Amino acid sequence: MSKSRLEAFSDGIFAIAITLLVLTVAQPGNYHHLANQLADRWPGFAAYVVSFAVIGIMWLNHHSIFSHFAHIDRGLVLLNLLLLLTIAFLPYPTGIFGQALREGSGTEVAAVFYSATMAVNAFAWSALWLYASARRRLLVDSFPESQRRMATISFTIGTFAYVLAVGVAFVSPVSSLVIQAVFAVYYALDPVGRQVAKSSAATEPVERA
Amino acid sequence: MSKSRLEAFSDGIFAIAITLLVLTVAQPGNYHHLANQLADRWPGFAAYVVSFAVIGIMWLNHHSIFSHFAHIDRGLVLLNLLLLLTIAFLPYPTGIFGQALREGSGTEVAAVFYSATMAVNAFAWSALWLYASARRRLLVDSFPESQRRMATISFTIGTFAYVLAVGVAFVSPVSSLVIQAVFAVYYALDPVGRQVAKSSAATEPVERA
Amino acid sequence: MSKSRLEAFSDGIFAIAITLLVLTVAQPGNYHHLANQLADRWPGFAAYVVSFAVIGIMWLNHHSIFSHFAHIDRGLVLLNLLLLLTIAFLPYPTGIFGQALREGSGTEVAAVFYSATMAVNAFAWSALWLYASARRRLLVDSFPESQRRMATISFTIGTFAYVLAVGVAFVSPVSSLVIQAVFAVYYALDPVGRQVAKSSAATEPVERA
Amino acid sequence: MSKSRLEAFSDGIFAIAITLLVLTVAQPGNYHHLANQLADRWPGFAAYVVSFAVIGIMWLNHHSIFSHFAHIDRGLVLLNLLLLLTIAFLPYPTGIFGQALREGSGTEVAAVFYSATMAVNAFAWSALWLYASARRRLLVDSFPESQRRMATISFTIGTFAYVLAVGVAFVSPVSSLVIQAVFAVYYALDPVGRQVAKSSAATEPVERA
Repeated sequence: MSKSRLEAFSDGIFAIAITLLVLTVAQPGNYHHLANQLADRWPGFAAYVVSFAVIGIMWLNHHSIFSHFAHIDRGLVLLNLLLLLTIAFLPYPTGIFGQALREGSGTEVAAVFYSATMAVNAFAWSALWLYASARRRLLVDSFPESQRRMATISFTIGTFAYVLAVGVAFVSPVSSLVIQAVFAVYYALDPVGRQVAKSSAATEPVERA
Repeated sequence: MSKSRLEAFSDGIFAIAITLLVLTVAQPGNYHHLANQLADRWPGFAAYVVSFAVIGIMWLNHHSIFSHFAHIDRGLVLLNLLLLLTIAFLPYPTGIFGQALREGSGTEVAAVFYSATMAVNAFAWSALWLYASARRRLLVDSFPESQRRMATISFTIGTFAYVLAVGVAFVSPVSSLVIQAVFAVYYALDPVGRQVAKSSAATEPVERA
Repeated sequence: MSKSRLEAFSDGIFAIAITLLVLTVAQPGNYHHLANQLADRWPGFAAYVVSFAVIGIMWLNHHSIFSHFAHIDRGLVLLNLLLLLTIAFLPYPTGIFGQALREGSGTEVAAVFYSATMAVNAFAWSALWLYASARRRLLVDSFPESQRRMATISFTIGTFAYVLAVGVAFVSPVSSLVIQAVFAVYYALDPVGRQVAKSSAATEPVERA
Repeated sequence: MSKSRLEAFSDGIFAIAITLLVLTVAQPGNYHHLANQLADRWPGFAAYVVSFAVIGIMWLNHHSIFSHFAHIDRGLVLLNLLLLLTIAFLPYPTGIFGQALREGSGTEVAAVFYSATMAVNAFAWSALWLYASARRRLLVDSFPESQRRMATISFTIGTFAYVLAVGVAFVSPVSSLVIQAVFAVYYALDPVGRQVAKSSAATEPVERA
C-alpha cells in the first residue's frame, strides 16, 4: 500500500463524514410554525458547525502529520483505520448532542457521549503518532529530533485536555460544546505543526498549506 | 497541503453533497394513491433539480477559480472549508423548501431559509476570492490585473443579488426558487470567467472547459 | 477543466449513488417475525440489485465513451451534469419500486416512475453522445467514422427501447424490472463498444477493460 | 479501463460504505433516559465496530490482491462489481443485527442474515481470485506459482469457514458476531498475503504496507 493511496482513502472518509453531518440535524416536526421549529434547532446547527470544523481541521492536520512520514507500514494502516472509525462515528454523537440540547433533556449524557468520542479520537491520534515517531520508525530524515519530542508532548497534553473536557460535560453541556470549538480553533492555528513544517521545508520543498 | 489535494477534497464534498440531495425528497406517505403522492411532490423534485444545478455549477466554477491560483495557504484552506460548509449544508434547506411547498405551509420561512443559506454561500465565495486576490496574494502571474478588478466587482454584485433574493423569498417563495435557478444558469454561462480563462490561456495552455 | 477531473468527479457520483442505494431497502417493521419481514422485502432486494447493476455498468460505459473523447468543453460538462442528475436520482425510484412491490399497491405507478427515470437517463446519454460526436466535435482522430454512425444508431435505438419499457411498466411491473435487468446485462456485454475499443486500440494503446 | 481507475472506484465504494455504517446505529427513542438508551445500544455499537473493521480490512486486502494483477479485463471488472455489491450492502444487515440484539427478538434470523451476506462476500472474493489467477490470466510474472496455489487453497478454506459461520449463527447470534470479528483480525494479520508480498517484492519494488 502506498502512502498516497492511504491518504486518498482517508480523505474520502473525511469528506464523506463531514458531508453526512447534515443528516444529523433533526427535520422540522411540523411546518405550521416553521420559523420557531428552525429557531429551536439552533443547538443542532451549532453542533453541526462544531463537528464540521472538527472534521475539517482534522483532515488538514492529517495531511500535515502524514507529510512527515517517509513511508507507511501495516501497523500504521490499522491505527489509521482506528482513527477513521472515531471520525466516521462523529455524526452519531453530533446528532444526539444537538437533539438533547433542543429537547432540554439528557443534555449531560449527550455532552459526555460527544466529549468521550472526541477523547477516544485524541487517543487514536496519539497512538498513531507514537507508533510512527517512536525510534523515528516512519519519520522522514529531515524531521528535527527536537520537534519530535515537542510533538509527542503536544499530543500527550492534547489527549489529557480532551479527557478533562469529558469532565466539564458532566457539569455544563453547552460549555463542553464551546470547549470543543475552542480546541478545533487551536488545532486550526496549530503553532507547533506550522513551525515543524517550516523547519523541515528546507530539505523537503513541497508546496504546503 | 498541495493545491491538487485541496481540490480533490473539495470535489469529494461537492460530489457527496450533490448525491445526498436525493435523500431530501420526501418518501410517499402511502402507496394507494402513489400517482397523486408523486405528483404532489413536484416542489420537492423542483428543489432537488435546482440544488443539483446549483452545486454542480459551483463545482465547475470552483475549478475555474482555483485554476487562477498559483499556490494555496492555510488561510485559503480554512476559507474553503467555510465555503464547503455552506455547500454541504444545502441538502437541509432543500428538503425543507420542497416539503414546505408541498404542504403549503411555512413556505415563506422555508424560502427565506434556503435563500439565506445561498446568501451565506455567496459571502463565503466573495471572502475566498478577496482573500486570494487582494494584492494578488495567490494569483498566477498571467492573470490580468483588469480581470482581477472585474471579478471582484462581479463577486460583490453577486453577493448583493443573493441578499436581495432573500427579500424576494419573504414575498413569493416560488419566485425565489426560480431566481435561484436563474442565478445558477447565469453562473453556468459565466461570461466573465470564460473571458478570463481565454485571456490567460495564452500563457498557461492547460486544457480547459 | 481537464477530462481526468471530470471523470474523477463523475466516478465519485457513480460510487456514492451506487452505495446510497442500500438506504432505499426498507427497514423491518418489527423483529418478532424477522424472517418473514426479510422474505417480504425480496422486491426491495431485487430492485437494489438491478439498480446496482445499472449504475455499475453505466460507470463502466461512461469510461468507454469518454476514452474516445480527445478533449472536453463546457457544453459537455453541463450535459454530463444532466446525465449525473438522472443517475444520482435513481435511488429514489428504486426505493419506491421495491416498497410498492412489497405492499402490492401502486406497483404500476412505481414501475412507470422507475422506467421513466431510466428513459430520461437514456435521453441524457444520447444527448451527450450526439453533442460530442456530431461533426466529430470532441472525438479522438483514431475513432473510426463507421463506428461513429453505428454508435449513434445504437444510442437512438437504446433510447427507443427505454421508452418502450415505460409502456411495459403500465402493464406488468415485475416484467419491467426484469427488462431493466436485461438491458443492464446487454450494456455489460456491450458488443458495439468493445468492437469500437478494439478497432481504435491500434492507434491508442491504452490499457483497457 | 485502467487498473488504477478500477481501484479508485473501488476505494470510493469502500470509503462510502464504511462511513454510511454510522447511519445504521439506531437513534435514541427518547432523551429522558438517554444513558440507558445508549447503553442498550451496545449491540448496535458492537456491530458497527465489527463491520467497520470488516470493510476496512477488505479494503486493505483488495489492494494487496490487485497489486499482483498485471492488468484487468472486463470479466474482472464485472466480478469486482459483484464483490462491491456485497460490501455496499453490508450496512443493511449490520443495522438489523444491532437492532435485533437490542430488542432481543429475531436475533438468530439477524445473525444468519449477516453471516450469509458475509458468506456471499467470501464467494465473490473467491470467484474474483479464481478468475484472475486461473492459468495466471491476470497475474504479474513475478507472482510465484507456489503462492498462487497456496492463495487458492486459502480462499477456498476461507469460503468454507464463512459458510460454517452461518451455521453458528442459527445457534448463537452473539458468538457469530465474535466469529466475524475474529475472521477480520485474521485477515488483518494476513500471514499468507504478507509472505506473498515479500516474495514478489524483489522484482516489483513498490512501496507496500
